[in-house]
Amino acid sequence: MKRIQIFDTTLRDGEQSPGASIAPERKIVIARQLAKLGIDVIEPGFAVSSPGEFAAVQQIARELQNVEIAGFARAVKGDIDAAVQATQDAARRRLHLFISSSDIHLNHQLRKSRDEVIKIARDMVAYGKQFVDEIEFSAMDSTRSGREFVIALVEAVIAEGATIINLPDTLGYAMPNEMADLIRTVRREARGGDTVRYSAHCHNDLGLAVANSLAAIEAGATQIEVTVNGIGERAGNCSLEELVMAIETRKDAMQAETGINISEIYETSRLVSRTMNFPIAYNKPIVGRNAFQHESGIHQDGLLKNRSTYEIMDPEAMGISRNMIILGKHSGSHAIKHRLSEYGVEVTEEQLKSIYEQFKKVADGQKIVTDDQLIRIAGDMMKTRPDPYTLVDLQVHAGTQRARSATVTICENEQGVEQSYMAMGAGPLEAVIHAIGQAIPVTVEFEDLELHSLSTGEDAHGEAVVSIVHNGIRYRGTSINQDIILAAAEAYISACNQAVMTAGARQNKREIV
Amino acid sequence: MKRIQIFDTTLRDGEQSPGASIAPERKIVIARQLAKLGIDVIEPGFAVSSPGEFAAVQQIARELQNVEIAGFARAVKGDIDAAVQATQDAARRRLHLFISSSDIHLNHQLRKSRDEVIKIARDMVAYGKQFVDEIEFSAMDSTRSGREFVIALVEAVIAEGATIINLPDTLGYAMPNEMADLIRTVRREARGGDTVRYSAHCHNDLGLAVANSLAAIEAGATQIEVTVNGIGERAGNCSLEELVMAIETRKDAMQAETGINISEIYETSRLVSRTMNFPIAYNKPIVGRNAFQHESGIHQDGLLKNRSTYEIMDPEAMGISRNMIILGKHSGSHAIKHRLSEYGVEVTEEQLKSIYEQFKKVADGQKIVTDDQLIRIAGDMMKTRPDPYTLVDLQVHAGTQRARSATVTICENEQGVEQSYMAMGAGPLEAVIHAIGQAIPVTVEFEDLELHSLSTGEDAHGEAVVSIVHNGIRYRGTSINQDIILAAAEAYISACNQAVMTAGARQNKREIV
Repeated sequence: MKRIQIFDTTLRDGEQSPGASIAPERKIVIARQLAKLGIDVIEPGFAVSSPGEFAAVQQIARELQNVEIAGFARAVKGDIDAAVQATQDAARRRLHLFISSSDIHLNHQLRKSRDEVIKIARDMVAYGKQFVDEIEFSAMDSTRSGREFVIALVEAVIAEGATIINLPDTLGYAMPNEMADLIRTVRREARGGDTVRYSAHCHNDLGLAVANSLAAIEAGATQIEVTVNGIGERAGNCSLEELVMAIETRKDAMQAETGINISEIYETSRLVSRTMNFPIAYNKPIVGRNAFQHESGIHQDGLLKNRSTYEIMDPEAMGISRNMIILGKHSGSHAIKHRLSEYGVEVTEEQLKSIYEQFKKVADGQKIVTDDQLIRIAGDMMKTRPDPYTLVDLQVHAGTQRARSATVTICENEQGVEQSYMAMGAGPLEAVIHAIGQAIPVTVEFEDLELHSLSTGEDAHGEAVVSIVHNGIRYRGTSINQDIILAAAEAYISACNQAVMTAGARQNKREIV
Repeated sequence: MKRIQIFDTTLRDGEQSPGASIAPERKIVIARQLAKLGIDVIEPGFAVSSPGEFAAVQQIARELQNVEIAGFARAVKGDIDAAVQATQDAARRRLHLFISSSDIHLNHQLRKSRDEVIKIARDMVAYGKQFVDEIEFSAMDSTRSGREFVIALVEAVIAEGATIINLPDTLGYAMPNEMADLIRTVRREARGGDTVRYSAHCHNDLGLAVANSLAAIEAGATQIEVTVNGIGERAGNCSLEELVMAIETRKDAMQAETGINISEIYETSRLVSRTMNFPIAYNKPIVGRNAFQHESGIHQDGLLKNRSTYEIMDPEAMGISRNMIILGKHSGSHAIKHRLSEYGVEVTEEQLKSIYEQFKKVADGQKIVTDDQLIRIAGDMMKTRPDPYTLVDLQVHAGTQRARSATVTICENEQGVEQSYMAMGAGPLEAVIHAIGQAIPVTVEFEDLELHSLSTGEDAHGEAVVSIVHNGIRYRGTSINQDIILAAAEAYISACNQAVMTAGARQNKREIV
C-alpha cells in the first residue's frame, strides 16, 4: 500500500472562496480539528498578506506540534521572509513557493520571459533553502504550460534544493490522463526528477478534481492538496472527503491509503461549513444531506434486505448518524416504521397507519419531513409522553425598526406550567433564540442555525436546523414551516428537548414512548 | 469529431433526489426547457408508478416531437405496457428496460439465479420489441457485477433485439479506468457487441461521475445519461452542465461534441433548481454562484489584464451574466470601479474612495456584497437620481398565529409620495411580498425567492434573491441583512426598480447616474 500524504489548504486556498472568509483568530479552531482528523500537512494562510494572517499562521505553527506546517509564499523575498518567520516555531515545517509556468500567465500577468521566470524560481528556492530544508515548489497553471518549460523549471528548482514538486491544475482544465502524463513525464525527464516527491493540487471547474487527483496518485504523486467540502477559488479545490473516501472505498483498485481518521470527516465538514459560512449542497458526496438517502422504493426495498445492495460506504463510520437521513413523500410506511424503531419507538400496524396518513399529509406540503417532525407526529398520534417543553405561542416583530422583538410562551409539560418571555435581537431569529433561551432553564450553548428555502415561490417552506451543545454533547433539532421564523423556533426547542431528555435518562435512547 | 448523445433523466432519476420531487403536471415545464437546450433523449418519468406519472410521460411524449422519448420500465410486463402506452404518441421513442446484474443484487434483492435473470431479460426484451424498435437495456449495478455475467446478459439481450446497451455505475463505485475497461470488454467479447450503441449512467458518490462518463466516451460510448445540476439518488447523477462543458472546453482532447445549446445551460439550471426546490451549491462547477468568481488579489489582477489567465470558459456563453458574480471583502477598489462601470456608472477617484470605504464597512459585516447593494451605496455616495421606489418602513408580525401580516411604506421618489399597505400571508415572506405588490403599481409576475443563511450563528445574515418577470423580461434583486425578512423585502423592491427603470428607458443601461 502506498501511503498518500494529505495536504490541507482549507485555510489558505479554501479561504479564497467568495463568502467563505474567516477571521484570522478563528483559524485555530479549524486547524485543531484538521489535526484531529489526521491531516499530514496544514497550510494555515498567506502570512505576508496581513498582520492578522501572520499571527494566525504563527499561532497554528506553535500549537499544532504533531502536524507539518506549510508556509505559503510567492517567489518573492518579502513573502518568503514572512512565511519563514511565521512558521519558525513549528515542530515540522516546509516552505511552499509558487510561480506561474504557463505562457498565458507569463505574457499577460507576469510579463516576464521563460528565462527570467527560471532565474527568479532558482534564486528564491536558494534563498528559502537557507532557512528551511523542506521546500515545496509549485508551477502554477502547470497543466496549461509548455511541457518542456515545466521540465526546465522543475530541473532548476531541484538543483537548488526543492524537495517536493507540486503540479497544480490551477484552473481545473486537465483531463485525468493529462494530469497523470504530466507527472510521469516531469519525473522521468527532469534531471533529478526521481529524487523528489510529487504532489497534485486540482481545481474542480469541470468536475474533475477528484479524478485528476487519483490519476496523479497512479502516476506516482504521494501528496494531494485538498480542502474540506471542496471550498476554494471559483468551483473550489479537490474535496478532502471525496478524495479520502474514494481511496478508502477503492483501496483494492488504488493500492493506496491515507492517515485520515475517517470518523472525524463529518464533524470536520460541519465545523468548516458553519465557521466559514459555506452551506453544503444536499447532493454533495459523502457529507451532503442526501448522500446516504435513498428515495426510490426499489432502493429502499434493497436496503432493508441488505445495506450493501445500495451502499458502498457506511455513513456511521464517518460520523454521520443515520437519523440525519431524511424522509420524503416517496417514503413508504415500511421506511417510517423502520425509522421510528431506530428511535426506540415501536408501533402497531394500527398506529402505523394513522401515523403514516399524517406523515403523508405533512410530506405533501413540505416535500420532506424531518425526524423531529416524524417523532412529534408519532407522539401526537400515540398520545404518549410529550416532550419536556412545548411551544405554546410565538410572536415576532421584524422589519425596518432598529431592534426586533420576540415573545414566546413555552409549556413545561411535567408541571403543566406556562411561562412567557420577551427578548430583542439584531434580527428576528436572534430575538427568538434569546427569548427561548430564557424560557427553557437548561444551560445549552447555541452553536449553529441553518436556513434553507425548500421551495422557491412566495409560498416557500423554510427548513431550519439548529445545533446546541449541552454537557459537551451536541444535539440537532430540525423543523420545516411556511413561517421560517417559526421553523427556527421549533427546531431550537426540539434540540433543547433532546438535551433535557438525554440528561434525564442517560442510558436510554430518546424516550418518547 | 464524435457526436455524443445526451440522455437526460432529470425527470426520472433526478426526481428521486430526496426533497426534489415535482408534481407530475409540472414536468412539462422542465421538459420544454430541456428540448430548448438541445437534449437528444428525455426520460420523463416512470409511467407505471402512478396515473399522474403516466399522464406526465404521455403529455411530454405528445408535445415534444423533436426529442426522442425514453419509456422507463423494470423487466416486467406491467411496466413495459405502461411505458409503451405512455410513449405511444412520441415522434421518436425507445423503451428503456433494466435489471440488476450484480451478485449482491441477485442474491439479496432479486433472489434469483444468473440463469433466471438472463431468461427474464431475454423474454422482456423480446416482449418490448414487439411494440418498439429501439430498445435500451441497462444492466443495473454493472460495475459491481461479474464481468463474464454482464457479457452473457448483454449477449442475450442483443440476440433479442436490444439496440443500446447502458452500463450504469449505479452506486458511483467505479474508477474511470474500470468504467472504460468494462465498455471495451463488453463490446469486444459479447456476441453482436459491435452492432449496438453504448451508454453510461454514472452516479457521483465518490465525486467521479463526470470522469467516469468521459472515460466511457473514450472507450466508445456514444450516449451519456445525465441530470441537470447533478440531482438524483444520494449524491446524484453525472451533472449535465459539467459533462457538456468538459466536452466543449476540452474538444481538443476529447475529439467529441454534443448538440447542446450551451447558451441555455444557466437558465435550465435555474429552472430545475426553483421548480424542483433544490438549491445549487455556491461552489457547484459551471452554475454555482462562485463558479466564475475570483477572490484572490492575484487572480483578480490577472483577469483585469486578460481574462484567459484565470478563465477557461466564458460564463456569458452559458447565459451567466457577469453581474451575478459577487463581490466580497477581499475585493479591491479596482474591482469595485470595474463592476460599477459595467452598470454604466463612472466614478472619479474621489467618489470611488468614499464608495469603497462604505463598501468595506458593509462587506466586513456580511462577507459579501450584492451588486444591488453596491449600486445603492454608489447612489447614496454620489447623491444621484434615486431608485423609483424606496422602502421607508416595514413591519412584520410572524409566529404561531394563523395568518402573518406585513405593513409596508414605500416612497415613490419622483413625486415624493409615500403610501402604506398591509397584507397577510401563510408565512411572513408571503405577507411581505403581497404588501409590496400592492404598493408598487407595476404589473410584475413574482417568480422565485431564495433564502440562504450566510453565517450560521444566532447573528446570522440572510441573503435573499428575488426574480420577477415584467413584460417578458426577468429581473433579479438581491439583498443581505441580519433580518432575513427585511432582506427579502429589499431584494423584491430592487427587482421592481430594475423593471420600472428598464421600462422607462428601454435603450439605456440601468440608469442610476
